[in-house]
Amino acid sequence: MTTKIRGVLAPVVTPFHADGSVHFERLLAQCHWLCRHGVGLAVLGTNSEANSLSLEERLQMLDFLVNEGIDPKAMMPGTGACDLPSAIALTRRAVELGCAGVLTLPPFYYKGVSDEGLFRYYAGIIEAVDHPDLRLYLYHIPQVSGVPISLELIDRLLATYPGRVAGIKDSSGDWSNTEAMLSRFGERNFDVFPGSEEFLLRGLRAGGAGCISATANVNPGPMYELFTHYEDHGADKQQEALNKVRGVFQGYVMIAAMKEAIAHWRKEPDWRHVRPPLMGLTVEQSTELFEQLQAIGFEMDFS
Amino acid sequence: MTTKIRGVLAPVVTPFHADGSVHFERLLAQCHWLCRHGVGLAVLGTNSEANSLSLEERLQMLDFLVNEGIDPKAMMPGTGACDLPSAIALTRRAVELGCAGVLTLPPFYYKGVSDEGLFRYYAGIIEAVDHPDLRLYLYHIPQVSGVPISLELIDRLLATYPGRVAGIKDSSGDWSNTEAMLSRFGERNFDVFPGSEEFLLRGLRAGGAGCISATANVNPGPMYELFTHYEDHGADKQQEALNKVRGVFQGYVMIAAMKEAIAHWRKEPDWRHVRPPLMGLTVEQSTELFEQLQAIGFEMDFS
Repeated sequence: MTTKIRGVLAPVVTPFHADGSVHFERLLAQCHWLCRHGVGLAVLGTNSEANSLSLEERLQMLDFLVNEGIDPKAMMPGTGACDLPSAIALTRRAVELGCAGVLTLPPFYYKGVSDEGLFRYYAGIIEAVDHPDLRLYLYHIPQVSGVPISLELIDRLLATYPGRVAGIKDSSGDWSNTEAMLSRFGERNFDVFPGSEEFLLRGLRAGGAGCISATANVNPGPMYELFTHYEDHGADKQQEALNKVRGVFQGYVMIAAMKEAIAHWRKEPDWRHVRPPLMGLTVEQSTELFEQLQAIGFEMDFS
Repeated sequence: MTTKIRGVLAPVVTPFHADGSVHFERLLAQCHWLCRHGVGLAVLGTNSEANSLSLEERLQMLDFLVNEGIDPKAMMPGTGACDLPSAIALTRRAVELGCAGVLTLPPFYYKGVSDEGLFRYYAGIIEAVDHPDLRLYLYHIPQVSGVPISLELIDRLLATYPGRVAGIKDSSGDWSNTEAMLSRFGERNFDVFPGSEEFLLRGLRAGGAGCISATANVNPGPMYELFTHYEDHGADKQQEALNKVRGVFQGYVMIAAMKEAIAHWRKEPDWRHVRPPLMGLTVEQSTELFEQLQAIGFEMDFS
């Protein structure tokens, strides 16, 4: 018997000390809080500023969380890198720690690369890690990475590594692409996670696996609720409520806005820190953000 | 007294063993050959597949080359990274080894970032390394990195860190941008290297510092000749001859084509290896490449 992770996952934002180092204790507290609200932990994602952390810091984070009691079966860490040795090291560590899956960016420095080149990258990881428990989720986020994952590439990877290639996070924001993945690969033990809860209900109705979305950092409970009750009356209303919250946060650089919200409701101002090249919100943006959140009755409960 | 590196530099292509590991001995031989032809060594650049190497491999390469007798004053290694800790570690190592300069990419994962965020990245490197010998060259290659270096950012960095911020490699291919940098910053101890020898003569006549160009890997002698004789009659003819060679190589993925040429004339087939996501030339492409090179009378001399 095998099980695969499904549901709502948060690409957990990474707290820093004032000097820019990772604040591991705060991260642990946030992970526990997210788990209590029913969402899984896609640590080391785009919203985690993973690529602003060194390989050493990333490995350290995985070790720390599992050693401190976070259930690895709730974790789908980001393990992609521009270089194969780093991607292999991260993926191997995640698998050895027992993580439910890994979410793996393509190498994103060179642009216009071939599907064959990308195939060799993913094959390089899968064959080097060489572990039956590996569940690798591809990461399609072309507007950031600049390197799309084509349907042809998925087809070939699935044919070559069935079981090991477990699914995809589609952050393109293009529903027609998500739909194409669902219809073409849904029957092949390939799980599709939209990259935004905007598509949570639509995705679940079409056979999707849930979603992996930034906003799960700040609004986990209601997102989990919709996942568990998507077949009920009222699901559409729940979806609308989620969209309202997302609508506010995506008016800003989301990472900065979510950290601002967590800092505010945790009463821990250091949560605002981001690493270059990102910037925190300005005072004006912060004021506006909280006015908008108040207007829709949103708040976070860390009691 | 201080001197700054000027002239033609090669972003040295990185040879690999069949298993994908760096072939350090071949790299050393190639560096010696390039130095004998008068060009400097911009190792760990885009054409070096630097971002396909781990931080550890990159540090190891710098140590190896200097320990094996390569003059660090001929070196301008790439030290940029998406994460500040890695960029600092590489830059620090290069400065401690005595390198003439460092060529530093902006963090290239997030797109649409602010000049303020990029300023903090470069400031973070310069202040952490905190060394009077640091000569940091910015790297403007927006078509690959997705993150341009604006004139305003240069202005601010130069004002804040005069001397430490030493120049730029402009790989935009947009002469009007190179010209704007030359005219705006040329008097402020800021050296502009076009990223292609296509602009070598034009750049030198306008006060440029030389060029840092892929093709210097395969055509170093004639490029150096033009640099040293650009005020002579016949310079335009020399430029035309360079353009012909470049014209052939840029009809392919240049890294693969240059490695193909080196493999051929060194009689070392392993030189063809690239790391994913790049691919070597196909047999057909290789045949065509050598036909085209023969037609213009080009060959490499490793005797």
